[in-house]
Amino acid sequence: MTRTIVESKTKTAIIGFDEPFCVIGERINPTGRKKLAAELEAGDFSTVEKDALEQVACGATMLDVNAGVVYNSNPNPNETEPPLMTKMIELVQGLVDVPLCIDSSVPGALEAGLAACEGRPLLNSVTGEEDRLELVLPLVKKYNVPVVAISNDDTGISEDPDVRFAVAKKIVERAADFGIPAHDIVVDPLVMPVGAMATAGQQVFTLVRRLRDELGVNTTCGASNISFGLPHRHGINAAFLPMAIGAGMTSAIMNPVRPVEMEAVRAANFLMNHDANGATWIGFSRVLDAVEAGTPYPEAAKAAMEAGSGRGGRRRRRA
Amino acid sequence: MTRTIVESKTKTAIIGFDEPFCVIGERINPTGRKKLAAELEAGDFSTVEKDALEQVACGATMLDVNAGVVYNSNPNPNETEPPLMTKMIELVQGLVDVPLCIDSSVPGALEAGLAACEGRPLLNSVTGEEDRLELVLPLVKKYNVPVVAISNDDTGISEDPDVRFAVAKKIVERAADFGIPAHDIVVDPLVMPVGAMATAGQQVFTLVRRLRDELGVNTTCGASNISFGLPHRHGINAAFLPMAIGAGMTSAIMNPVRPVEMEAVRAANFLMNHDANGATWIGFSRVLDAVEAGTPYPEAAKAAMEAGSGRGGRRRRRA
Repeated sequence: MTRTIVESKTKTAIIGFDEPFCVIGERINPTGRKKLAAELEAGDFSTVEKDALEQVACGATMLDVNAGVVYNSNPNPNETEPPLMTKMIELVQGLVDVPLCIDSSVPGALEAGLAACEGRPLLNSVTGEEDRLELVLPLVKKYNVPVVAISNDDTGISEDPDVRFAVAKKIVERAADFGIPAHDIVVDPLVMPVGAMATAGQQVFTLVRRLRDELGVNTTCGASNISFGLPHRHGINAAFLPMAIGAGMTSAIMNPVRPVEMEAVRAANFLMNHDANGATWIGFSRVLDAVEAGTPYPEAAKAAMEAGSGRGGRRRRRA
Repeated sequence: MTRTIVESKTKTAIIGFDEPFCVIGERINPTGRKKLAAELEAGDFSTVEKDALEQVACGATMLDVNAGVVYNSNPNPNETEPPLMTKMIELVQGLVDVPLCIDSSVPGALEAGLAACEGRPLLNSVTGEEDRLELVLPLVKKYNVPVVAISNDDTGISEDPDVRFAVAKKIVERAADFGIPAHDIVVDPLVMPVGAMATAGQQVFTLVRRLRDELGVNTTCGASNISFGLPHRHGINAAFLPMAIGAGMTSAIMNPVRPVEMEAVRAANFLMNHDANGATWIGFSRVLDAVEAGTPYPEAAKAAMEAGSGRGGRRRRRA
């Protein structure tokens, strides 16, 4: 049974075939969030703090941290991203105790994040592109961390799932050449929007099964891509997640501050026999009760966490 | 590709691996509905009429008709069910044009329903019990109809999914002896409550795959059993249905007047590539818009159906 171990300074999370689905909170990401990007350039980290606390309260297993800004004052991300990544990682791990996922396409930012991060973060990501393999896999080996492997290569993103499987296989094999085991590779088979490609859902379900059965790897995805451009997309997401989990997907980068999607994940965990005695479901149902009574979901989730057993994600802020 | 053909006088529905999920409306059933049972004994069929129209408006592909009453005036269902079944079938097929599912454990009521029903109804059900096989399979053969096969036998309901598979296989083989093909058997692998049996979900997903791959049969279930006794059970149902559909389940006996479950089914159809261009999803999203704006779901669904292409399920009432 494949297990990918990720750790903060104090907490371990396992991505695995026999584990509850790993929810990687996607919110700390200025890409496409102009307001957040401007705040970060101005040295204002209040949204990052709020997003970190809120996502953990809402049930994120890990938090993705992406420093992908383009500053007005300096358009070169190779210069701006690494120090910002350091700062964000330090801030977030001072606030919450879940493991982190260091997310960048800038190798210098990945290394800065690895240097700053306590424990064993997940590195996000390597692709099948030659230059990425040569830059990122040595970092993975040096820091002994697991890595997200995205199934595109120098030819781009193939619409043919067999090609995407072959790219994933190539990355796993290349990683093995560096001494990196398959259980430290978390493959993202790439989720296309079902509104644009009718086979998008079935491609993912088939690929996840193959990746699991043939390569023995854990899997992840940007879950909300599936519903891009569609009305009532949370309804699509809330069916996609259980179906992907049923097919064997073990994690997703997603927004945990959405009760519909989190309800779907928690129900799927229960149905996969990954929620002993339904304890998590029953606890979550009290949060849903509060939401139905009018409390906003993040507040209801936070109250439930604080009323809980002290296993909550909040750590005392560093002085 | 297995296809089970069911028909009303004017409409064909196909239960099949390459078809949208078949929603069999469960509401017309006095079992456990004391008020409805009393109404029926008093000759009042207004609830049956309402349930028929409402379920079709809400998207039922077929309607289950169960006449399982125990009258105060006559406690013998062998006497009371057959004429009541005749009356209910005649009433319902005069109101709506979807195919029907004749549901009884009283052989006389099954035969009365078959005699009254136009088209090609689904018979519900036979089990692996010897006396049921000998009573029901000749009816299936005589009327040339498909039949629901429930995976229990004279030893009861096994908690071992391999035993339930073996019972289903026995029924398929026995049916073949009568000249009934596998594509006319719709197996119910029996859904246990996940709150009582932690493996209940996984058992169903595994069984559905085996039934499909090894016996080539369509499948069905009483979907809401999975969440029996749990809080927020519609959330469990709404994850279970997409997972079961992803595993290959092709129909369920369920309540179509629940928007959460119907949203899950419609999203799963889209993700299985059984909703060309997402046309059904997009139409359904307008119903969800109306529900969010405050219209009760059955009303919103009815308005959408009547505004639609005239493919609606209402027929003029017989004089």
